[in-house]
Amino acid sequence: MSQPHHDDHLDRIRLPALRERITTAAAAAEWIKDGMTVGMSGFTKSGDAKMVPLAMAERARHTPFQITLITGASLGNDVDKLLTEAGVLARRMPFQADPVLRAAINRGEVMYVDQHLSETVEMLRTRQLAPIDIAIIEAIAITETGAIIPSTSVGNSASFAILADKVIVEINLSQSLALEGLHDIFIPKHRPQREPMPLMTPSDRVGTTTINIAPEKIVAIVITEKQDSSSTILPPDAETDAIAAHLVEFFEEEVRCGRLTNSLLPLQAGIGTIANAVMTGFINSPFAHLSMYSEVLQDSTFDLFDAGKLDFASGSSITLSSQKGAQVFRELTRYKERLVLRPQEVSNHPEIIRRLGIIAINTALEADIYGNVNSTHVLGTHIMNGIGGSGDFARNAYLAVFATKSLAKDGKISSIVPMVSHVDHNEHDVDILVTEVGLADLRGLAPRERAQAIIRNCVAQPYRGLLQEYVTEAGERGGHTPHVLEKAFSWHTRYRETGSMLPI
Amino acid sequence: MSQPHHDDHLDRIRLPALRERITTAAAAAEWIKDGMTVGMSGFTKSGDAKMVPLAMAERARHTPFQITLITGASLGNDVDKLLTEAGVLARRMPFQADPVLRAAINRGEVMYVDQHLSETVEMLRTRQLAPIDIAIIEAIAITETGAIIPSTSVGNSASFAILADKVIVEINLSQSLALEGLHDIFIPKHRPQREPMPLMTPSDRVGTTTINIAPEKIVAIVITEKQDSSSTILPPDAETDAIAAHLVEFFEEEVRCGRLTNSLLPLQAGIGTIANAVMTGFINSPFAHLSMYSEVLQDSTFDLFDAGKLDFASGSSITLSSQKGAQVFRELTRYKERLVLRPQEVSNHPEIIRRLGIIAINTALEADIYGNVNSTHVLGTHIMNGIGGSGDFARNAYLAVFATKSLAKDGKISSIVPMVSHVDHNEHDVDILVTEVGLADLRGLAPRERAQAIIRNCVAQPYRGLLQEYVTEAGERGGHTPHVLEKAFSWHTRYRETGSMLPI
Ligand SMILES: CC(C)(COP(=O)(O)OP(=O)(O)OC[C@H]1O[C@@H](n2cnc3c(N)ncnc32)[C@H](O)[C@@H]1OP(=O)(O)O)[C@@H](O)C(=O)NCCC(=O)NCCS
Ligand SMILES: CC(C)(COP(=O)(O)OP(=O)(O)OC[C@H]1O[C@@H](n2cnc3c(N)ncnc32)[C@H](O)[C@@H]1OP(=O)(O)O)[C@@H](O)C(=O)NCCC(=O)NCCS
Repeated sequence: MSQPHHDDHLDRIRLPALRERITTAAAAAEWIKDGMTVGMSGFTKSGDAKMVPLAMAERARHTPFQITLITGASLGNDVDKLLTEAGVLARRMPFQADPVLRAAINRGEVMYVDQHLSETVEMLRTRQLAPIDIAIIEAIAITETGAIIPSTSVGNSASFAILADKVIVEINLSQSLALEGLHDIFIPKHRPQREPMPLMTPSDRVGTTTINIAPEKIVAIVITEKQDSSSTILPPDAETDAIAAHLVEFFEEEVRCGRLTNSLLPLQAGIGTIANAVMTGFINSPFAHLSMYSEVLQDSTFDLFDAGKLDFASGSSITLSSQKGAQVFRELTRYKERLVLRPQEVSNHPEIIRRLGIIAINTALEADIYGNVNSTHVLGTHIMNGIGGSGDFARNAYLAVFATKSLAKDGKISSIVPMVSHVDHNEHDVDILVTEVGLADLRGLAPRERAQAIIRNCVAQPYRGLLQEYVTEAGERGGHTPHVLEKAFSWHTRYRETGSMLPI
Repeated sequence: MSQPHHDDHLDRIRLPALRERITTAAAAAEWIKDGMTVGMSGFTKSGDAKMVPLAMAERARHTPFQITLITGASLGNDVDKLLTEAGVLARRMPFQADPVLRAAINRGEVMYVDQHLSETVEMLRTRQLAPIDIAIIEAIAITETGAIIPSTSVGNSASFAILADKVIVEINLSQSLALEGLHDIFIPKHRPQREPMPLMTPSDRVGTTTINIAPEKIVAIVITEKQDSSSTILPPDAETDAIAAHLVEFFEEEVRCGRLTNSLLPLQAGIGTIANAVMTGFINSPFAHLSMYSEVLQDSTFDLFDAGKLDFASGSSITLSSQKGAQVFRELTRYKERLVLRPQEVSNHPEIIRRLGIIAINTALEADIYGNVNSTHVLGTHIMNGIGGSGDFARNAYLAVFATKSLAKDGKISSIVPMVSHVDHNEHDVDILVTEVGLADLRGLAPRERAQAIIRNCVAQPYRGLLQEYVTEAGERGGHTPHVLEKAFSWHTRYRETGSMLPI
């Protein structure tokens, strides 16, 4: 393989003794043995290890081996695809978003453990999961003391490096050195010595700027220039604009009623097209001095900075489209004072989410008439991505919003159904449901009232009438949450049989 | 009505000016007007207002009126029953456990808002729910400064009294004055001034021993001797003994593996017969110096104190059987140093639950093969009690255990089903599922593996074979979480039609 030899790659390894650990990706990959648990950097395509995993896939093609792969969240650079195709993945956690891996999971070939993103390192630290044998972490540099400076994400990287006996570092020359100082690495103590997290505003810094480990643990260093994959979210469209407008209108009303100030409360926005579009919608809102306490900072975060709407953004990764990424990383120093990247355990911590009073905006694949939300399982069985941090946020937030387009697949699917085919967020955790049709404010409503609010505000015809029929029939059977169980999934089974949820 | 005139009732109102507010329950009840939102003390039958609500029911019999009633949790003394029968309850939140009220809710007559118990006062404080017009709080005494000393529960009482303009106090002479000093009232600040809760062990005291309000807000004082209702939990039986034994064995193994010490981590135990029996099972365990950080302290808490197993217990209420109650309250000073009662917002706070690393043990009505849990809805539609604090605990705990007997209704119902008919706790929040048959450790397992662990360990025949058939058929359809949607509820619909989940 061709190894880049930029002038600066030695400068990026500031502890000279470590320079002798520089090796090829293939050699580094030899450290990974069959049956190991590997912790890799990477969160929503950013800051992922890029060279060693590909060398692992390469090796597995002639010498098969399998591992448990734990990351921050999803990876870029087709890493999950290539590892899947090479048969390397026996187990995968806590999140993924790759079509090839997804298909293998859905065939039952890869055991996928879909977790709340704040929980993985808690479970590792308390040895409730098998220990990490080796960590592979992308870095912009290694300091004079052998500490790792992460790149565009923190994710679980710090705890992986701390918990593993051996660490492989990928120094990525394409990642800007201006990222140095952006990170805030805070690691909670073991119980019962654990103390309150001293974080009181999104901009508070409570940790160190580097991942501090014993340098002897670094067994190999690989140099690369391979870039982060760009995000592939779609631009806002008429429907996402309508969703954003309904939400802005709702928040304006909250401000008018004195429940929120004009800077609202710290915002969290989920991944994907809809959440990004919703955030973009705040550009043309009357709100000012907004802040974000989120996981992934997408294009919209920087649009909001540029529009003068956003004062500060805390996240665990920066994941941008290629155009936005080129601009942002070129001008990073301009944004840097207003940014911090944290471990996902901190960005998603129940303690902080409740204390700050986060407004959490996440996306549903489908929701039901009572406000239960399915964010993960297509037709109840086939995983899309995973629950991610949406459960950390929705349960503990000041306000939990879920957004979805009311229709999918050209109207053959209604995203509002009698009963969701999989529950990620139950009615207790869903305060606001919004589609392009409108917004249902479910706070303080009983299930029968929730059903009326959702059907009236969020559903387009002809599904609105069909849901009303269902509710009427269910109501005759009685109950706090009326259902006709034998028809609860009839829309899903009809889609499976006929290709449409609409009756023929 | 006959008003008790014990020697001490004036002594219990230590601010003399307030003594003129003493009145009858009927007169006090006149403060409650049609359409009001009333906040009443009471948590799992303890420390509930007992006289004024009954006078309200009395009055409504000739002069109908309706209110929104918010409490800590469930009430005793048939308060919910009598208010329901008198038609007083338009809305009720956040928890109930009364058969008459339950039936009215299930008929759709009372709008019941079933909430995470930590959230109600957060929503009131931020005016996301309609404001409390009047609070009715049971107290053992009022101090020299007009502060309220609660009785056997704290629940939401402190915030109700702080948020309401008017407060009615019921001084209960049957409640021991030895309760004074037991309470620890901590009220979080408004955001964005909110600080970390300084609580680091279950025994830490972070607040005041009284509910401090302006004495002018106390518009009426009613004197009573009416006792708390006793808990009606059943004694342990062979099945609950088996559940407890499986759990003790599991924890012994955790200690052997070095994941827990011999004093485990602070325990939370849910309400009802099964949770109480499980805790009782710790008496004959090798563990020592246990602690509890829970909501309701039931008989088992005091059995564990007496057995020398338990060092400290933090809760929001003390709810005991009549026999245990007589003994405990007689000897309260003996236990007092090892007890604290907190607002339910603190006992159930995500921040504290995660920091302390709670072991949360709650009860399922039914669970499914993937480990989703229904704790509230019989056959998916009819509410039993409510989610209570189980969601606060299970989501944020170190370890979330759910227990259930494998069979209900003489075996006509399997409590392990293909798909739960209502989801209160999804697979991400259920680490351990235990029945009298055995225990499934679900940590780090993918859904298909979870199904095998649950069917093998938790299910009795003939349901075990039937579930295995379902899993096989579902697996052929594929998916991360395989299901045959049109049969997912077939067991429930069969029970509805034939009176048994078993095929004929
Ligand atoms: C739910 C989620 C997939 C939506 O992503 P998105 O890009 O905003 O949404 P889209 O509307 O583009 O939908 C994505 C796909 O789901 C499909 N879809 C939408 N609703 C559907 C439904 N009810 N049934 C089946 N498929 C549906 C869309 O058609 C689209 O399919 P395609 O990829 O084949 O075009 C995504 O937000 C997610 O994975 N969320 C879970 C994790 C999470 O919330 N994280 C936030 C904190 S990390
Ligand atoms: C789930 C809960 C009802 C169990 O209570 P319990 O007293 O331990 O359990 P039991 O086994 O005695 O069951 C209670 C009733 O449910 C019935 N039941 C049990 N499993 C059932 C099932 N799968 N389907 C229908 N009914 C079922 C029992 O037959 C019994 O009925 P009965 O009252 O007519 O005799 C109770 O724990 C609860 O309300 N939990 C939710 C709130 C909570 O978890 N709080 C904890 C933190 S506050």
